[in-house]
Amino acid sequence: MAVKVGLIGTGTVGAGCLDILRNHHDDFAAHYGVDLEVVRVCSRQPDVARAYGYGDVFTPDYREVVNDPEVQLVVELIGGTDAAHDVVATALRNGKAVVTANKALMATAGEELFSLANESGVELAFEASVGGGIPIIGPLKHSLTANGISKVMGIVNGTTNYMLTQMDEHGVGYDEALRDAQQRGFAEADPSADVDGLDAAAKIAILSSIAFGSRVTLSDVHAEGIRNVSTTDLEAARDMGYCVKLLALGARTPEGIDVRVHPTMLPLSHQMAKVSGVFNAIYVVGDAVGETMFFGEGAGAGPAASAVMGDVIEVARHMVMGVTSFVGCTCTRSLPIVPMDDLETKYYIRFPVADRPGVLASMAGVFADFGVSIYSVVQRGKKEAGSVEVVYVTHTACERDIRAVVAQIASQDDVLRGEPSIIRVED
Amino acid sequence: MAVKVGLIGTGTVGAGCLDILRNHHDDFAAHYGVDLEVVRVCSRQPDVARAYGYGDVFTPDYREVVNDPEVQLVVELIGGTDAAHDVVATALRNGKAVVTANKALMATAGEELFSLANESGVELAFEASVGGGIPIIGPLKHSLTANGISKVMGIVNGTTNYMLTQMDEHGVGYDEALRDAQQRGFAEADPSADVDGLDAAAKIAILSSIAFGSRVTLSDVHAEGIRNVSTTDLEAARDMGYCVKLLALGARTPEGIDVRVHPTMLPLSHQMAKVSGVFNAIYVVGDAVGETMFFGEGAGAGPAASAVMGDVIEVARHMVMGVTSFVGCTCTRSLPIVPMDDLETKYYIRFPVADRPGVLASMAGVFADFGVSIYSVVQRGKKEAGSVEVVYVTHTACERDIRAVVAQIASQDDVLRGEPSIIRVED
Repeated sequence: MAVKVGLIGTGTVGAGCLDILRNHHDDFAAHYGVDLEVVRVCSRQPDVARAYGYGDVFTPDYREVVNDPEVQLVVELIGGTDAAHDVVATALRNGKAVVTANKALMATAGEELFSLANESGVELAFEASVGGGIPIIGPLKHSLTANGISKVMGIVNGTTNYMLTQMDEHGVGYDEALRDAQQRGFAEADPSADVDGLDAAAKIAILSSIAFGSRVTLSDVHAEGIRNVSTTDLEAARDMGYCVKLLALGARTPEGIDVRVHPTMLPLSHQMAKVSGVFNAIYVVGDAVGETMFFGEGAGAGPAASAVMGDVIEVARHMVMGVTSFVGCTCTRSLPIVPMDDLETKYYIRFPVADRPGVLASMAGVFADFGVSIYSVVQRGKKEAGSVEVVYVTHTACERDIRAVVAQIASQDDVLRGEPSIIRVED
Repeated sequence: MAVKVGLIGTGTVGAGCLDILRNHHDDFAAHYGVDLEVVRVCSRQPDVARAYGYGDVFTPDYREVVNDPEVQLVVELIGGTDAAHDVVATALRNGKAVVTANKALMATAGEELFSLANESGVELAFEASVGGGIPIIGPLKHSLTANGISKVMGIVNGTTNYMLTQMDEHGVGYDEALRDAQQRGFAEADPSADVDGLDAAAKIAILSSIAFGSRVTLSDVHAEGIRNVSTTDLEAARDMGYCVKLLALGARTPEGIDVRVHPTMLPLSHQMAKVSGVFNAIYVVGDAVGETMFFGEGAGAGPAASAVMGDVIEVARHMVMGVTSFVGCTCTRSLPIVPMDDLETKYYIRFPVADRPGVLASMAGVFADFGVSIYSVVQRGKKEAGSVEVVYVTHTACERDIRAVVAQIASQDDVLRGEPSIIRVED
């Protein structure tokens, strides 16, 4: 049976979807009984549509897709939360199923969009929004349902993982690693969504919502990026038996949901320590299944299109089968977000400080004042003119106290010589 | 809505399922809308049923479960292919959905059972048959459908992976590793299903059937176990930059499906090289998604019960939703099995041979006679009275020729002093 698809966005992922259709359209019909027919293609690049043979169904106006009565399923691949929101919301209101790869949209407007889908009795699928081609939303919504999930933890941003891997393996600094990533097309000209942890924050909001059955939005996630991570930090981590990853973490605690993104030290023996380069991995801990991990390519045309088209086939299969009830929004609880200040963990903190007598003693005093117990303090890295790097590792401490320590040290005259690097330790 | 379940088998996995129900019954009702009600429990151990409060619905006769009109969903956890076949087939014929963890049954009678399910319009689910708690059948049947899968490769037997890890990390021999595994409850008193590769063979038959959309049964799988693997082999592998794993492998080739289980050398840099102990991992390569891996605990009450109960919830959710069309058998093609003799790969072969002049020369002659090109030959291991170990690594060669070489050497008078160890190299 034909299922009529409107595709909006023909960038990397959109073109990847058209590649898959060109290679496998007949397989999908033979194997799954779905004849996917692209009846509308919208983008700012008519050339792409033409190159794939869709020149005659091309439109530059997405409204012509979401309002076309013939279209049954809209694939939204333009990204962002402005036009994309209108695309998805209008399509759902018009009774069309939607498949999207849009993490920012799902992490901010997921609740509203699911209720629109519900009102219209159509499906909204978004496997590609997290982890590229890695199946994770499907497994969480279907395979792992028998578990009380206590933790979901991911390396979900390929750009920063590539940069950290380069810094770790080749000893290059942050700036050089960023330039390299930009040259290879792994990072944008404006890299802030990646390096400041916002991309990862949207993804962990989505994963936490599903894992814990309670809505977590982008603004609930405490996000710190990797701008302050240096090769000194990576070397220090290795000496301690750890690696540094930009980890997105959601945990179910007695108080609610602890959800955050920040540079994290992971033991080298941890399965996720071995996830390098642009690969992604998502680690899930359930009370029955124990530890499980999903690994694969987190970005790129093929992997993301694999997830998008997997959703398209699944939704189309439901249409062909006449299935009108689906698993939609799974947020049936309403758990509080645990304040970041309440976090208790071990901390690694590197301070670039003035190289003069009394500085170390005064810093030690500040840690003591706030009751933060120090496990080790060493001087690391190469000594620059008038400045040294001092690395503290604490015993388990409270985030609130750590912030107070850092603020207090920063407020002292002529002590700090740069931004401190704060890395939380996950054992 | 209540869904009435009949549970057959209360061993490790069955008890794990009852634990999950005890912990999460109310969550399942609140979160997924399914009120799972166990109305029949069958086993040889009335004590277990009683301990979980099911004494009054206990029966020692499975026929009382599969023929009970009240039961809507049968969970088969007795294993084997005799009574279990009758349980599953009768339940399906009687219009009951079935969830099973039975790999041997699915790998031998999958086609027949799926056609029974189809005739009755009920579901047959078997996520727990492969990889314990790791979601893999769901992802293959739902998330990765947009891909042409070229390879599925797994460490799917925890017992042998534990043994090989012990041998590799602690230098203990095969016999000691087996005793250790038996003492810890990881291996049966009769370990042949594990150590001879039959358990893994059933699992790769199931995975290959789904990945390639063409029925592969247990008897199609070429299976070799780990009985001939020694610490010498593990040391030699490490020196070459490899590890040795009992790998279950299915590959789509131009000729059909290449499916086999045998000890395999994997580069230490491969993501699967790091899967140690009782953990399992399944590696899938698709034309869009690229490389992806699913990792977790492959055995034990919790993980297996997680997969069983995930299926139970999914099937029950479909009943509650009134979904009467499902994704059932996905074998829509009929591809030939590639004969093992046609395999072309690199080989590592260790021969325990007589320590006397002329043996090496005569062996080299045999390799030459069959046109097998040798990459390296070294003497390894400790020299015992009158015998030495000689290790050959070949360039890419054909299985047929390798077998002829080994047979020819075995047929020579007074050369072999033990079973050769043949390990295929996967680059």
